[in-house]
Amino acid sequence: MVSAILLMHCPDQKGLVAAVTDFLYRHSGNILHLDQHVDIQTRTFFMRVEWDLKGFGVDRSDIAELFQVDIAERFGMHWHLHFSDDVPRVALFVSKLSHCLHDVLARWQSGQWQVEIPVVISNHKDMEEVVTRFGLSYYYLPITKKNKVEQERRQLELLKDHQVELVVLARYMQILSADFLAHYPERVINIHHSFLPAFPGARPYHAAQERGVKIIGATSHYVTADLDAGPIIEQDVARVNHRDTVDDMVRKGQDLEKVVLARAIWYHLNRRVLAYGNRTVVFS
Amino acid sequence: MVSAILLMHCPDQKGLVAAVTDFLYRHSGNILHLDQHVDIQTRTFFMRVEWDLKGFGVDRSDIAELFQVDIAERFGMHWHLHFSDDVPRVALFVSKLSHCLHDVLARWQSGQWQVEIPVVISNHKDMEEVVTRFGLSYYYLPITKKNKVEQERRQLELLKDHQVELVVLARYMQILSADFLAHYPERVINIHHSFLPAFPGARPYHAAQERGVKIIGATSHYVTADLDAGPIIEQDVARVNHRDTVDDMVRKGQDLEKVVLARAIWYHLNRRVLAYGNRTVVFS
Amino acid sequence: MVSAILLMHCPDQKGLVAAVTDFLYRHSGNILHLDQHVDIQTRTFFMRVEWDLKGFGVDRSDIAELFQVDIAERFGMHWHLHFSDDVPRVALFVSKLSHCLHDVLARWQSGQWQVEIPVVISNHKDMEEVVTRFGLSYYYLPITKKNKVEQERRQLELLKDHQVELVVLARYMQILSADFLAHYPERVINIHHSFLPAFPGARPYHAAQERGVKIIGATSHYVTADLDAGPIIEQDVARVNHRDTVDDMVRKGQDLEKVVLARAIWYHLNRRVLAYGNRTVVFS
Amino acid sequence: MVSAILLMHCPDQKGLVAAVTDFLYRHSGNILHLDQHVDIQTRTFFMRVEWDLKGFGVDRSDIAELFQVDIAERFGMHWHLHFSDDVPRVALFVSKLSHCLHDVLARWQSGQWQVEIPVVISNHKDMEEVVTRFGLSYYYLPITKKNKVEQERRQLELLKDHQVELVVLARYMQILSADFLAHYPERVINIHHSFLPAFPGARPYHAAQERGVKIIGATSHYVTADLDAGPIIEQDVARVNHRDTVDDMVRKGQDLEKVVLARAIWYHLNRRVLAYGNRTVVFS
Repeated sequence: MVSAILLMHCPDQKGLVAAVTDFLYRHSGNILHLDQHVDIQTRTFFMRVEWDLKGFGVDRSDIAELFQVDIAERFGMHWHLHFSDDVPRVALFVSKLSHCLHDVLARWQSGQWQVEIPVVISNHKDMEEVVTRFGLSYYYLPITKKNKVEQERRQLELLKDHQVELVVLARYMQILSADFLAHYPERVINIHHSFLPAFPGARPYHAAQERGVKIIGATSHYVTADLDAGPIIEQDVARVNHRDTVDDMVRKGQDLEKVVLARAIWYHLNRRVLAYGNRTVVFS
Repeated sequence: MVSAILLMHCPDQKGLVAAVTDFLYRHSGNILHLDQHVDIQTRTFFMRVEWDLKGFGVDRSDIAELFQVDIAERFGMHWHLHFSDDVPRVALFVSKLSHCLHDVLARWQSGQWQVEIPVVISNHKDMEEVVTRFGLSYYYLPITKKNKVEQERRQLELLKDHQVELVVLARYMQILSADFLAHYPERVINIHHSFLPAFPGARPYHAAQERGVKIIGATSHYVTADLDAGPIIEQDVARVNHRDTVDDMVRKGQDLEKVVLARAIWYHLNRRVLAYGNRTVVFS
Repeated sequence: MVSAILLMHCPDQKGLVAAVTDFLYRHSGNILHLDQHVDIQTRTFFMRVEWDLKGFGVDRSDIAELFQVDIAERFGMHWHLHFSDDVPRVALFVSKLSHCLHDVLARWQSGQWQVEIPVVISNHKDMEEVVTRFGLSYYYLPITKKNKVEQERRQLELLKDHQVELVVLARYMQILSADFLAHYPERVINIHHSFLPAFPGARPYHAAQERGVKIIGATSHYVTADLDAGPIIEQDVARVNHRDTVDDMVRKGQDLEKVVLARAIWYHLNRRVLAYGNRTVVFS
Repeated sequence: MVSAILLMHCPDQKGLVAAVTDFLYRHSGNILHLDQHVDIQTRTFFMRVEWDLKGFGVDRSDIAELFQVDIAERFGMHWHLHFSDDVPRVALFVSKLSHCLHDVLARWQSGQWQVEIPVVISNHKDMEEVVTRFGLSYYYLPITKKNKVEQERRQLELLKDHQVELVVLARYMQILSADFLAHYPERVINIHHSFLPAFPGARPYHAAQERGVKIIGATSHYVTADLDAGPIIEQDVARVNHRDTVDDMVRKGQDLEKVVLARAIWYHLNRRVLAYGNRTVVFS
């Protein structure tokens, strides 16, 4: 079954759901999933609707234009149209740690995710063997203070050449510049190894151990120019106690990191995330 | 703000969401929340829609009839209409244990729940002092094999006299007969002290300890004639280990029981639960 | 069964466990539980040992002196001796919110905890009826900038008069002075309604909602002069999503708060907590 | 640092901890970790003690004999001695699903676990490419009713030839015979994709969906001749709701399965598990 997915948001007003669902009904659309949300404070309307393309009275290549003219213009909507048979092209950025990388590659290879990974970029050589063994292309772009601007330019070229739509930082230990991020707004997903906003920045497991917390966490978020402060997509936690050394926290935490990152990517790939302000609506 | 809530289900077909939301839009209804779900296997449509009564073009006393004629008949819907200022009347059934009782009474008294508790029924005298101290009426109806039919008749009279719409079994250790339950279909909520379907019946913590599980649970469900087998509304779990005796499991489990029961009641009171077959849709 | 409990800590060295367990063995002590921990960084040894008093060859009134002379002096130990039939005397401090108060009172009344609550102190009158209904004494001591020193003096007198050993702040919304706290080092337990160190201070649920976190938490800790920065005893979390308003977070969070506070109190009452530096060892 | 680990159990009696710790102290052993547990019902004593070999007064090759003569015989102990620099040899059994396999291989390759994997055995060819790409040996041993006895004989030969001490069933979809299991008592670890004892046997996610549970789980246990009934080492759970199809449960469940299996293996490899009756003591 192939389905179409509309993600939309606009100022709230009466008749929004009626207008969209009537649009689908008039063209014989069979709704599979519909989720909506109204943010009371900002009076913003959010909706995700997914319908079966089989029997739909509008050719898939015409849906966007028709929706824009019939509905979106009338309500001042921001919207995106996706199809379930799209195969998103994802770039992975890694450094020296392998756990998130292995996890993403396993999901890709087993077919759990319908994605292509045309490019893996790293500032270290450590993961080259892992990546090439999976038959993927590895680009080694070491970063220094001096060459950072130049290397980011090359990274962007690679992303453009390979038509990448989503960048996943799988424990990539470099800060991307605001210039870089401007090319991929809400399309760079990071995993931070703490329960944000607790312990942003470097060495969060050390900080957690120092503070004596009883629970550690991991946070996946869209990357913005503010370090570890972008819209949170997913978080999860694990118990620790006084017996857990920093090494134990790292071990427990890495299992969180890979699962939390995977969920965030999955939500994004399934067009379930709408970012607004510094928050997200996730239709999980 | 006073809102109206429609809970509905019917065989799935095209145009359902459009019809309902258009009905609201035509009468100037401002949708606050809309959740829908289609069960693919049974092709059943479920929806909960809540809208602001302020500015709505139909008097609240006329909504039911109009919805029935305009929408429900056309689609063969089962539906219920509620208003957010309804004050549900709840009966509590208890035996000897106080933790769920105390928890429910605290939520009632603090105003966390907008309910009335006109009657508390018990087969033991133990909780009488706790209940009367809160200013509530306690009915002591001891149950024996011999008097069970007669006592259930008196229980039903009390429920009827006090116009009770929801019965909460707060660790009530008697099995209600099928006859009794027929008067309150999907309106008797129980808390079972295990992670169902594991450990149904008596002494689940003993059984859990015997089996050596590493996690215990609690399950709140609508009561049906099949013991501990009715539609599950909510579950939660807690970790245990080899150090935990049965007493420790009871202590940890009671904290689960009261919170799980409270969540189930809250979902029910907020008209977020639709039972079908032996399952529930909970628009949480 | 009555048992004795020794809690001890000292610089780590060889032979500590052997010395303590040999002490018990020589006097025919039957060990029920033994937990030890060595903090590698600070090279500190922690131990909790509980043994059956029945058949123990030393009178309970002589154990402390004998242990001090035979063992503790030799290793430079800090230690406390408790007996399982001690009935700790606990003071509750409350303000306007009732959920933690109700929960503590229910545990006390049902006998889940073996404690006495000789005094409940509040800066508001709101909870007086709840408390007196349980037959407990309520002291209304309103706090202003001007009278704070005087009122804390009266609080301390009450605690002293009633031989209180543990103070529980059950959502008490006043900051205790360093002077006050000096009288009860590691004996004042607070519940903070966030996952510390995230969102310290006022209005953490508002801050959590603003930040768009996907999980909220509660933290119980010993109170120190640094606001919300004392040694953490217990934490727990609950999932939230974009649908959750601040009110929803408060509702979900209050269920966390009361359970987390109760666990922390239970650990303390069962002599399972050792605070050191700004952390705790909890032998759970 | 290289450490020695003693795991022991015996009928409980006074002086056990004193005897063992005195043994270590007399030989200048520095205890790193000590955990003990007494099962009250069966009056069984369990202990794990780990100490630094550096400075220990007994040569590592002589410890076992000395401990047996000095301590174990006296108390009728069952015990095992391990060293932290042992490199356990693990066999993986797989079928068609890759998620647990990938996860184990990633932990092995990254060095998170200090193990060797001399042999991977499967009743299908599907995973051969994945395994050989990691440089490991893959043995394809298809199972039919007719050849099962013969194939198990070959499996056992492989395990013996490769000096395997632990067998991990990473979603191996064949039942091992009691004869096979008799060669590896408490040394075959399985992952079952449900929260046991709920939903044993085939297709647990279908059963979970049918029953309408709100939480699914995974269970790792030692395999015994009773299907899905062996001693549980570790369990964990994830929330589901009415929106989750069986496919969604499989996706969420697979993330549980791999993490729960990994934790169980890690506990076993770190000599933290003692099985007794049908339960386990896990010194986590």
